[in-house]
Amino acid sequence: MIYLDNAATTLLKPPAVGQAILRALQTLGNTARGAHGYSTEAAGTVYDTREKLADLFNCTRPDHVVFTSNATQSLNMAICGVLSKGDHVISTDLEHNSVLRPLYRLQCEQGVEVDFVPADKRGNLDYNDFERLIRPDTKAMICTHASNLTGNMTDIRHIADIAHDKGILMIVDASQTAGTKRIDMQEQGIDILCFTGHKGLMGPQGTGGMCIREGVMIRPFYVGGTGVQTYSQAQPDRLPTRLEAGTLNGHGIAGLSAALDHIGEVGPENIERKEAQLTQRFYNGVKDIGSVTVYGDMSRDHAAIVALNIGDTDSGEVADELYEEYGIAVRAGAHCAPRLHRALGTQEQGAVRFSFSLFNTEDEVDRALYAIESIAKGI
Amino acid sequence: MIYLDNAATTLLKPPAVGQAILRALQTLGNTARGAHGYSTEAAGTVYDTREKLADLFNCTRPDHVVFTSNATQSLNMAICGVLSKGDHVISTDLEHNSVLRPLYRLQCEQGVEVDFVPADKRGNLDYNDFERLIRPDTKAMICTHASNLTGNMTDIRHIADIAHDKGILMIVDASQTAGTKRIDMQEQGIDILCFTGHKGLMGPQGTGGMCIREGVMIRPFYVGGTGVQTYSQAQPDRLPTRLEAGTLNGHGIAGLSAALDHIGEVGPENIERKEAQLTQRFYNGVKDIGSVTVYGDMSRDHAAIVALNIGDTDSGEVADELYEEYGIAVRAGAHCAPRLHRALGTQEQGAVRFSFSLFNTEDEVDRALYAIESIAKGI
Repeated sequence: MIYLDNAATTLLKPPAVGQAILRALQTLGNTARGAHGYSTEAAGTVYDTREKLADLFNCTRPDHVVFTSNATQSLNMAICGVLSKGDHVISTDLEHNSVLRPLYRLQCEQGVEVDFVPADKRGNLDYNDFERLIRPDTKAMICTHASNLTGNMTDIRHIADIAHDKGILMIVDASQTAGTKRIDMQEQGIDILCFTGHKGLMGPQGTGGMCIREGVMIRPFYVGGTGVQTYSQAQPDRLPTRLEAGTLNGHGIAGLSAALDHIGEVGPENIERKEAQLTQRFYNGVKDIGSVTVYGDMSRDHAAIVALNIGDTDSGEVADELYEEYGIAVRAGAHCAPRLHRALGTQEQGAVRFSFSLFNTEDEVDRALYAIESIAKGI
Repeated sequence: MIYLDNAATTLLKPPAVGQAILRALQTLGNTARGAHGYSTEAAGTVYDTREKLADLFNCTRPDHVVFTSNATQSLNMAICGVLSKGDHVISTDLEHNSVLRPLYRLQCEQGVEVDFVPADKRGNLDYNDFERLIRPDTKAMICTHASNLTGNMTDIRHIADIAHDKGILMIVDASQTAGTKRIDMQEQGIDILCFTGHKGLMGPQGTGGMCIREGVMIRPFYVGGTGVQTYSQAQPDRLPTRLEAGTLNGHGIAGLSAALDHIGEVGPENIERKEAQLTQRFYNGVKDIGSVTVYGDMSRDHAAIVALNIGDTDSGEVADELYEEYGIAVRAGAHCAPRLHRALGTQEQGAVRFSFSLFNTEDEVDRALYAIESIAKGI
């Protein structure tokens, strides 16, 4: 069985992840409740993981690393915690529904106004559009670091420069790049970085978070017990407590911590190189197969994703055949990216997405190429 | 080392929990993304767990079991998803900050009006107060099934009868009882049951959820990718998707599923009996130690919790001594229950909370009693 659906979740995790979770299941109390050893062990594990994430993303303060249960939660918290009635926000056609739906909801319920930078037929943005769309009441720009459909990456530094020039916040969805592409909050000018733990970071599901630049204020999304300032009616002001209510996923965070160690040992740049090689090998193989259309712009910076269709065959049919006849797991359909499908003209057909991880091999890529060639011949 | 802080999180889990997570880490894709075997395996695991929870709590529909990452999230979702501007709500002095803070916030930001049924000095409620506080605009009653501080249980059926008589919703916080006390949504008249996975259910941290009676409408709390209805700007209407955006904690849910199997094998009634025996043994031992004050009403239905103080010694000092001198982990302080501490008169001193699980033993109880006796002698 060949797993090429790593953009949905990385199936293979470093073995240390499971071992760390097992150990945590035997030793971890509640992270912020109590002063006994089990509880302080839990708090230590959580704090260490904040530090590792702050290091990886160059976030200046570990206490500004906030844990959530996935990128969707992080994005909801960032978007709803920053935008208020009457604000204007600029986003893009590349976004996932985890960005789009919170924006549509604020538009509908709060009168927040939203403009989208359009994507062209190759899924590229024109950065001048960000500048063009700025208004005096523009509060934030929200942009993905890489499309989850085409893998096209965006130049966050470029967009952030435009934003900061006008005092606008830069919020980044790093769901497809955290752990596999270089992210440097300082250098790229990221004010709020939203990420998930179970994709490129190779941690367990149920983990994710956000890194927040010093001075950026986000209203709490959910509120509750914090183990501190119990008699205050409001959620405590300080980060990370401000945005973390209730018991953290200590067991999952322990697993994420082990995954971060693995990333550190292999070297983030080696992971990026390996994934780029697999992606390029795959693209080189498919691009000349007659009747195959590849989406996105493979000539620019790219996440380890290639989306394609074979003739006008429904993407779901192709994915089913890949799985049933060749034992290859990919994802078809709309990928929660409705605006980009419209831009690419694939709203009806969807697209077949191949996505690679550190643990895939060249042989697996070649077997996927063989399968696509065979299916293409058959239609 | 003796762990008696199970009301914060059960440290010991059935061994099958860790094994299920390990297996899930090798086999589970994304629960609602794609149609390949890894993804359908994930979806199957999640659905099975919904069924087990629906069975345990007698929720009529497994698809009305919604996963969250802890009870705090469930409570925020229930409270904010049901109450609107101008609504009136009745809650109690027994509540945890996971109920109080969302209510205070709605009070402050939305003009929701809140009344609290007062607790007496033993932490009991007068059920007539629920009736007395009802107004024409009362939308919901929100009550814990057991205080996380004293362990006093509430008669949910009684309160729900009062509520339903006036068409008022009954929301229950089962953080301290799910898995260890009988919960029957039909019989007790619960409209929304909020629970966590990592306490009495003995699952991993990062799991929790809510069970929703058919016909009860809850607005989505966070919105995003759902893997279905991608082209709809709004979150899909149907449960559980309506309240679940983004990738579920499939690995954690697999662990919770194994924990539910363990509960089924041991028998919920046997777990309840075992915990009640330990609690009663502990209470019988402490109640006559001079200078020990036990809080709550041990003559009524009770969760496996005993809160006490020794003389006027700060609760934190006692807990520290228990841990450092006797290797006993308990929790001191305010327990996120500010209103109840005020009612008990323990706002300054806090309280030392002992909480038991299936995996504790009579010997551990006796050693805790010995420790308390020794500390009490020393002051």
